[in-house]
Amino acid sequence: MPKVSQKGISMPESPIRKLVPYAEAAKKRGINVIHLNIGQPDIKTPQVALDAVKNHNLEVVEYSRTEGSEEYRTKLAAYYAKYDIHVDANDIIVTTGGSEALSFTIGSITDFGDEIIIPEPFYANYNGFSTAAGVNVVPIISKIDDNFALPPIEEFEKLITEKTKAILICNPGNPTGYLYTPEEIAKLAAIVKKHDIFLIADEVYREFTYDNRSHYSILQEPDLEENAIVVDSVSKRYSMCGARIGCMVSKNKALIKTAIKFAQARLSPPTFAQIASEAALETPQSYFDEVKEEYVGRRELLIHELEKIEGVTIGRPQGAFYCIAQLPIEDSDHFAQWLLNDFSINGETVMVAPAAGFYASEGYGKNQVRIAYVLEKESLKRAVGILKEALKSYKG
Amino acid sequence: MPKVSQKGISMPESPIRKLVPYAEAAKKRGINVIHLNIGQPDIKTPQVALDAVKNHNLEVVEYSRTEGSEEYRTKLAAYYAKYDIHVDANDIIVTTGGSEALSFTIGSITDFGDEIIIPEPFYANYNGFSTAAGVNVVPIISKIDDNFALPPIEEFEKLITEKTKAILICNPGNPTGYLYTPEEIAKLAAIVKKHDIFLIADEVYREFTYDNRSHYSILQEPDLEENAIVVDSVSKRYSMCGARIGCMVSKNKALIKTAIKFAQARLSPPTFAQIASEAALETPQSYFDEVKEEYVGRRELLIHELEKIEGVTIGRPQGAFYCIAQLPIEDSDHFAQWLLNDFSINGETVMVAPAAGFYASEGYGKNQVRIAYVLEKESLKRAVGILKEALKSYKG
Repeated sequence: MPKVSQKGISMPESPIRKLVPYAEAAKKRGINVIHLNIGQPDIKTPQVALDAVKNHNLEVVEYSRTEGSEEYRTKLAAYYAKYDIHVDANDIIVTTGGSEALSFTIGSITDFGDEIIIPEPFYANYNGFSTAAGVNVVPIISKIDDNFALPPIEEFEKLITEKTKAILICNPGNPTGYLYTPEEIAKLAAIVKKHDIFLIADEVYREFTYDNRSHYSILQEPDLEENAIVVDSVSKRYSMCGARIGCMVSKNKALIKTAIKFAQARLSPPTFAQIASEAALETPQSYFDEVKEEYVGRRELLIHELEKIEGVTIGRPQGAFYCIAQLPIEDSDHFAQWLLNDFSINGETVMVAPAAGFYASEGYGKNQVRIAYVLEKESLKRAVGILKEALKSYKG
Repeated sequence: MPKVSQKGISMPESPIRKLVPYAEAAKKRGINVIHLNIGQPDIKTPQVALDAVKNHNLEVVEYSRTEGSEEYRTKLAAYYAKYDIHVDANDIIVTTGGSEALSFTIGSITDFGDEIIIPEPFYANYNGFSTAAGVNVVPIISKIDDNFALPPIEEFEKLITEKTKAILICNPGNPTGYLYTPEEIAKLAAIVKKHDIFLIADEVYREFTYDNRSHYSILQEPDLEENAIVVDSVSKRYSMCGARIGCMVSKNKALIKTAIKFAQARLSPPTFAQIASEAALETPQSYFDEVKEEYVGRRELLIHELEKIEGVTIGRPQGAFYCIAQLPIEDSDHFAQWLLNDFSINGETVMVAPAAGFYASEGYGKNQVRIAYVLEKESLKRAVGILKEALKSYKG
């Protein structure tokens, strides 16, 4: 029998996927599983985007332009300008989700055996895309006690080798919720310029910032044009994760020219989703105000409730809609399984994402879980209550 | 300035892309450019697919299931059964176009430096996906004088090394239009089993066969379950290239399990396009009958008209909607440019795809072009007339 590749064997499995059968079994037993584990918001997609698709007048669903339609990219540039990010349509490649933007970025800047430095914990799929490209992720630990702030820049310096092609950050962070300060971005800018490498920022949660703080993009950093690559997506911004539209943005012309070759190989981004995404740019500000108010409320509630549980430490999120919680347990994989298999209160239990899957370093995150606050407040409160009782009953 | 990757530099550019500026310039001069160069059919997308998207009732455009919805995959299995291909939903991964199916396939079966044998001329993006994965395409020449039939199996045997992980065919072929016989498939089956490698077949043109011949899938070949991987797409079948839905199909469980890990990294295929694709399975037979009649007519006309031109040899297509024509010229790149820059009749010219881009071997295909017959007959006839006159005027 022919064999699968070594690369395929090394490809990480989703940290949540192995829990899915247990969740399904729990549901079959009549248990209501409250999902704290997923990044799928319950927020409605803007009506303007849904309607644009309903009102499409296509007769032939043709290939769209490889790099995305001129109209959409021009409108995207105007969207960025509102955030003091000054790019034009030619600096943007429309992609099939932020995922493809990452994949094109990694392909365009790395060769087999190269390295990318990523502060951990990080979005697990960074590892997947790197593995698929034969690239090694070099993790650098960020600590829950520091709220997952940028690790000391000297630590990055120590890890940079000839193979290092980029530093990759997620800002605000999934799974940490950490929002980098302009001072931290400036430090990263200095180090990537010094070593002539790229700085990649996954900024898909740009709009989701709290405590009256605002997002500072790497594209706002002066004199970083040639080094900065932003990965973006409509998934969370407009709660349309299933559309699969994102983009990569860079002022580095050689990079964009190269990435377009990867884009050409897959022909074009999806047409219907592009219609939705272009229309979504017309979403009224009131939508974002309401969404933000909702997330602020959820975040306050989550933090407040979690802080009441003895032995729990949390990384206080300033952005996105995730939070890493350190629990008084030894193995969050086992705990997450146990929650689904052996625990319930009034016919309900919770599903959490074990955090080890967000670390590349062996042994880290084993007493942590990622909690996504993408549920309405009542469920969220009940879920944390269940977690609290579960921690009392759990013997490890 | 940080540099792009060696891989990025090696990524092939689309063989047509460099002609695009010349075509745009011609249009600006008021010339009507008839496109014989593209695989974008003018056929209308089935109304049932367009309507399903118009009538969507989504409120939140959520991630769909990584491997595609159970319902859609179950219906796909029923679609395959009609073609005597017996698979079930678990043998299918829904992908973002046939492109992603190819990309997952290559990732799942090859490591850096591995080889895939492909009869040339072949769909140019096979080279792109291979380059992106660090895999070497090993071409094996198929000849216009044999109508691009399968090269002698001994020639394959000579090229197989320890690095060889698969043989890849396109059936019916883009750009050749060649339809492999069951005997040829049996020969390929024997050799891949003998060497314990995979046989990948891109069967996206399954429905487009002529001369009363029908398509024979590698999944119909007995005893090939572990070796056969089919790459498929809705793009051409339902003239919805822009939807970006395809799938990979294999009975090899380890392969599917591995490919799902690649699929997980990119989360899910596009939701709206999946709605369209599921509905498209309800397309009435009358649609296909009409489309086929149209293509049969175009093909007869194209062949008839091309055969009238002195010095032109054609590979007689038995499937798909492409044809390779060998012209009495030395450099089809130059000829294609000249057609756009320096030639027109009554304000019209034609754009063809130079065939060198479909060969991996240096120097091949330089006197050939690919002609796609995706235009209605009147334009097609006029286009071949222009080509005939152009060949008289062209001095090389």
